[in-house]
Amino acid sequence: MTTRATSRSGTSRSGRRPGNSGTREAIIEAARQRFSEVGFDKASVRSIAAKAGVDSALVHHYFGTKQDLFVAAVAIPIDPTPVLRHIAGTPLDRLGEGLIRNILGAWDSPAGVGLVAAFRSVVGGGDPALIRTFLLDIALRGVRERVDSPPGSGLERVTAVATQMLGILVMRKIVELEPIASMSHDDLVRVFAPTLQRYLTGTLTSP
Amino acid sequence: MTTRATSRSGTSRSGRRPGNSGTREAIIEAARQRFSEVGFDKASVRSIAAKAGVDSALVHHYFGTKQDLFVAAVAIPIDPTPVLRHIAGTPLDRLGEGLIRNILGAWDSPAGVGLVAAFRSVVGGGDPALIRTFLLDIALRGVRERVDSPPGSGLERVTAVATQMLGILVMRKIVELEPIASMSHDDLVRVFAPTLQRYLTGTLTSP
Repeated sequence: MTTRATSRSGTSRSGRRPGNSGTREAIIEAARQRFSEVGFDKASVRSIAAKAGVDSALVHHYFGTKQDLFVAAVAIPIDPTPVLRHIAGTPLDRLGEGLIRNILGAWDSPAGVGLVAAFRSVVGGGDPALIRTFLLDIALRGVRERVDSPPGSGLERVTAVATQMLGILVMRKIVELEPIASMSHDDLVRVFAPTLQRYLTGTLTSP
Repeated sequence: MTTRATSRSGTSRSGRRPGNSGTREAIIEAARQRFSEVGFDKASVRSIAAKAGVDSALVHHYFGTKQDLFVAAVAIPIDPTPVLRHIAGTPLDRLGEGLIRNILGAWDSPAGVGLVAAFRSVVGGGDPALIRTFLLDIALRGVRERVDSPPGSGLERVTAVATQMLGILVMRKIVELEPIASMSHDDLVRVFAPTLQRYLTGTLTSP
């Protein structure tokens, strides 16, 4: 994540490297601890800055928004913002297909290798609180609000989606099980989009 | 797997511990290599015995069948045979529910802790060839033959099932994402059994 954070900061500072890498590391470490302890919403930038012994303004200067800081802290090698924006613009009745196409686009991009590595380290013994926070407070939040019908069902809907997408990721990228590993995006949409669409907008009570 | 293998052998030998643990370890190591290199079917007990420098009869004496040897070699802490027998006895039109109930029963049993640990080590950097072999040649083989309609579709059907079940396992046991982590088996059946049933016997072409 150091690379990513440096590049972000570097861009805003005309390519110069930030001077105090110890401070950056202290902020990252404080952010990891706070996000893990209290989750995304309750971990204020102010409390993270205090824990790192720096001013809040310095945190924003180095990392941008709180979401940017989270992405850097948990070493997610892809900026989820454009993916989430695409998904937010997909009509509800085509959200199943929209989700799988956008997520596959990220995984199967060159940066997806890093995404798989990050996931491996979490499953292999990393901090599950951070991946929960990423899923609930960043990746799934917008969709959850849109599919909360009947009211209160949104969380069950989006976590069901997460199980299916995660299973595809693990089988395709880690277990490398055929035909899942080599299927085209169109074929994956054919098999899995109806599942996601039911989780999002279908009935989840027994038939 | 040492514990499990010892207990199997110990039972057949009135509780005495086997004398030559070096031989047992050599067989296990040879089995792991052969299964990983050529898969379950092509890894004959004879070739494993030869690699370990022992007689085939000794392999059977210590470990039982080839499937038993595989389970010991990949450190699967649950004997899949009773689970597979239950699943084989479930009618095709209720196979989705039958699969999820039987697999949840294994994961949520006391031995399921070891199952999760074994999975973690594979995902964290273990040998994916072994988990593929387990899935294709042991766990999914019987079901694949039953759902191969139209002919040739069986592999896509059972691997789709595997993605959904694996995603539930990871979310429930490793990421511990709520409500998936605490849902009752009945609730998991309500949400996920229709998905599995479609993968197994439904249409997988676009609607």
